[in-house]
Amino acid sequence: MCRWIAYRGDTIALEHYVTAPAHSLVEQSMRALESIAATNGDGFGLGWYGDHEEPGLYREVRPAWSDENLRHLCRHLRSHLFFAHVRASTGTPTTRPNCHPFAHSRFMFMHNGQIGDWSLIRRRVEALIPDKFYRSRVGTTDSEAVFLAILGAGAEHDPVGVTLATLATLAAFVDESGTKEPLRFTAALTDGRDLFAFRFADKNNKANTLYYREDGGNAVIASEPLDKEFDVWKPVPPSHVVIARAGCPVSLQPFAEDARLAAE
Amino acid sequence: MCRWIAYRGDTIALEHYVTAPAHSLVEQSMRALESIAATNGDGFGLGWYGDHEEPGLYREVRPAWSDENLRHLCRHLRSHLFFAHVRASTGTPTTRPNCHPFAHSRFMFMHNGQIGDWSLIRRRVEALIPDKFYRSRVGTTDSEAVFLAILGAGAEHDPVGVTLATLATLAAFVDESGTKEPLRFTAALTDGRDLFAFRFADKNNKANTLYYREDGGNAVIASEPLDKEFDVWKPVPPSHVVIARAGCPVSLQPFAEDARLAAE
Amino acid sequence: MCRWIAYRGDTIALEHYVTAPAHSLVEQSMRALESIAATNGDGFGLGWYGDHEEPGLYREVRPAWSDENLRHLCRHLRSHLFFAHVRASTGTPTTRPNCHPFAHSRFMFMHNGQIGDWSLIRRRVEALIPDKFYRSRVGTTDSEAVFLAILGAGAEHDPVGVTLATLATLAAFVDESGTKEPLRFTAALTDGRDLFAFRFADKNNKANTLYYREDGGNAVIASEPLDKEFDVWKPVPPSHVVIARAGCPVSLQPFAEDARLAAE
Amino acid sequence: MCRWIAYRGDTIALEHYVTAPAHSLVEQSMRALESIAATNGDGFGLGWYGDHEEPGLYREVRPAWSDENLRHLCRHLRSHLFFAHVRASTGTPTTRPNCHPFAHSRFMFMHNGQIGDWSLIRRRVEALIPDKFYRSRVGTTDSEAVFLAILGAGAEHDPVGVTLATLATLAAFVDESGTKEPLRFTAALTDGRDLFAFRFADKNNKANTLYYREDGGNAVIASEPLDKEFDVWKPVPPSHVVIARAGCPVSLQPFAEDARLAAE
Repeated sequence: MCRWIAYRGDTIALEHYVTAPAHSLVEQSMRALESIAATNGDGFGLGWYGDHEEPGLYREVRPAWSDENLRHLCRHLRSHLFFAHVRASTGTPTTRPNCHPFAHSRFMFMHNGQIGDWSLIRRRVEALIPDKFYRSRVGTTDSEAVFLAILGAGAEHDPVGVTLATLATLAAFVDESGTKEPLRFTAALTDGRDLFAFRFADKNNKANTLYYREDGGNAVIASEPLDKEFDVWKPVPPSHVVIARAGCPVSLQPFAEDARLAAE
Repeated sequence: MCRWIAYRGDTIALEHYVTAPAHSLVEQSMRALESIAATNGDGFGLGWYGDHEEPGLYREVRPAWSDENLRHLCRHLRSHLFFAHVRASTGTPTTRPNCHPFAHSRFMFMHNGQIGDWSLIRRRVEALIPDKFYRSRVGTTDSEAVFLAILGAGAEHDPVGVTLATLATLAAFVDESGTKEPLRFTAALTDGRDLFAFRFADKNNKANTLYYREDGGNAVIASEPLDKEFDVWKPVPPSHVVIARAGCPVSLQPFAEDARLAAE
Repeated sequence: MCRWIAYRGDTIALEHYVTAPAHSLVEQSMRALESIAATNGDGFGLGWYGDHEEPGLYREVRPAWSDENLRHLCRHLRSHLFFAHVRASTGTPTTRPNCHPFAHSRFMFMHNGQIGDWSLIRRRVEALIPDKFYRSRVGTTDSEAVFLAILGAGAEHDPVGVTLATLATLAAFVDESGTKEPLRFTAALTDGRDLFAFRFADKNNKANTLYYREDGGNAVIASEPLDKEFDVWKPVPPSHVVIARAGCPVSLQPFAEDARLAAE
Repeated sequence: MCRWIAYRGDTIALEHYVTAPAHSLVEQSMRALESIAATNGDGFGLGWYGDHEEPGLYREVRPAWSDENLRHLCRHLRSHLFFAHVRASTGTPTTRPNCHPFAHSRFMFMHNGQIGDWSLIRRRVEALIPDKFYRSRVGTTDSEAVFLAILGAGAEHDPVGVTLATLATLAAFVDESGTKEPLRFTAALTDGRDLFAFRFADKNNKANTLYYREDGGNAVIASEPLDKEFDVWKPVPPSHVVIARAGCPVSLQPFAEDARLAAE
């Protein structure tokens, strides 16, 4: 079970959320609190938007806590929209292309969770990816495949709608595979402008934790609160999406009835 | 274009061929002579058979020439059948699972070459891999996919036959994809007992170099001669397979007529 | 605080102690029990004796738990005398030359502990190393410096005596530096034949845990028991050295009076 | 023999010099032209000044040519003063702390060359480093030691003067050590404002190549020209320092008579 944070708001140095707070993401890489895997040492990644349409990426196989480069980059990189992720592998190898976030054109995605028994549905999920996007599959994780499937489904036109539809398809695949492994999905998606985060678990499974915090026009969404001001961190209910559009207050919306039904 | 060596014979320390000779494989990682890519610095790997049916693997993303571990392992590991490979990527990322050799159960495989334009035929080649073997696909290279396709085609029963059949299928895929990129295939395959090496290029393309050397009952097959005794290194002609069965002299056989026709 | 094991006895595969037991060293890299640092993810290392006088070394900066090479090597390498170590850095960078064990000629050493405030006494400790050995200093850890100082003091002739003398010198340096940081030293040293392990802390500080187990002529010494058979693991008292000479039963000896006095 | 570039001028993206030109530094990592070591694959590094007094650093042990992170960073990082370096080791291990550039407070340094037989003078050079700076020695290279010695000699007050004085001391050490190995020193030093580059070889040895280019107020200094516009790249004569102060045209000055005499 991984840990991640996503930020959208005023342009700030990444260190404000990634390395500086008491319970920063780097701290969580060594000592997560609300996670089964207390250690998230199977690689990490940063993704941020700057002067280009496409985000920059920095991904490494070493643990975040001992990476000197990460501290330098978080101190020097400034962005109005960035993702950071520390990984606890559920089985796929620790390689850079398997580290989150994933980026394609102006889109970026990261995930914490489990897609049933991946070995049973991998081919079906990969078959969802159109050829145009399949050539961008450089790793072997379920998360990257789901991202490319979401892009292929038309994230450009309706990011929330196609993510929920893909989630419903994944739930059906997991169900049909006969596994008892859960589908747990807490993910962040952005087109470089608006930020969306999803919290979901199938059937009677408990969704992984997800919180958000709004401060002025700045939104932070995270697997766990980054500091002790617990009252300002609002939990995201299961089957809800957090919407942080540029220039708008953060809103919380339940999954559409049909998506929910299909998925549950 | 990568460089590799394969050995079958008396049990020896790996250093005899991997690190010690004047033009050892590690030396070739920095200065290959008969290769377009003079530098083979995109990772490397060792695979060897010892007390277990399955081979051991050591694969690393750093260049072979600066890896202290490699020197220690080549000095201490002894084997009667081993592969070593230095990689020059043709596009897939430099990760450990993308480094050769690849191993599955008692089989091991490594490759130097190019399978046309991989992005055009990747899905068709991956579709050749039966589910049972697809879950072992931990990297993203063409070479690993071809290995799993060969296993899926029945390498257990007829290693040479199914490799030639797979090669014919690959040649058809490359041809049908409309690319001008060549199919070049110089590969080694073993079941832990017998060793086979293949040299092939489609159409009018020039096959990558391949040599072998026999000394007593010991066979060495390599992309390039490992020393200056050029008269003892015999070039493998194109469309030929080198067969080094345990307890038998090395033999050289032309591809079967139908395999050759299908492939050319 | 790191975790380590040392073995001397019949020739066995390294996996028996490094990767296989319920609470194996690799398991301890993720979840140590008797350590302040529950996670030991700042690199690891193996050192083993085989056909050569000098030991082989395999050291890596990634955590032990996700290293596929380590599993292969522990399955295939066999030895009558080997060390394995998982590292939790006390400040020096995570590089291969900073990973334990350290080897020089036929000697090998590894350490878990703290040498006061290293920045205050580093120059004095490095000055203990004779020129002949100083050129072998390839890393920057306190542990490597202490090893080279022990070699320089004559480990060849009296391994236990010169280690205790060096320890007394270190205790004096720490004391004179005015720091409140403790000297804690639990270390293993071997000349390729006999195995010695030391447990010590200065003043009123608590020494790091150390246990040993003897079974037939086989000795295992470890920071923590590797399995639940707690009654067969004997704790090493502080200021004691475990002596496991080839062909002799394991013995436990208190530090010589003068070494103890000098050190305490 | 390494390759490096240094830039001071208008704020630009690092890619303009590190990854984009025909003969960019990344290209030089694989195919240097004016270097004995054609391959510079033993790690690399970036250092840049941004919003902070201290520079940011990104250093990696993998070859520059296959590092996806490097391409992202060079595209997104912008700076008015930056260094980039690809390394061909002269013996010290390939670790991040051994990669250039080196940074301390607001100073940054990188080097290409050789300091005689390092094993013979290492202790004397390390002894030049005051305690205050010795605790910042995290690697084992000659270059880092020389940088800390220059800082200790008062780079804050007279960067060129103390570098030349240190160079004279190094020349004396090399001479007294009795080695036949040359002292070759082509290095860049900056305090975050002004940029200095030095080209030197002792006795009758040939200094490593060094060029500079001035365009408007922008200065680029490099081991080799980065493009085919050979007429705009001016060679730096031996025993000369290039001075690129903020807001001033680049000037070229011969070493002061006494420094030259001491050094030669």
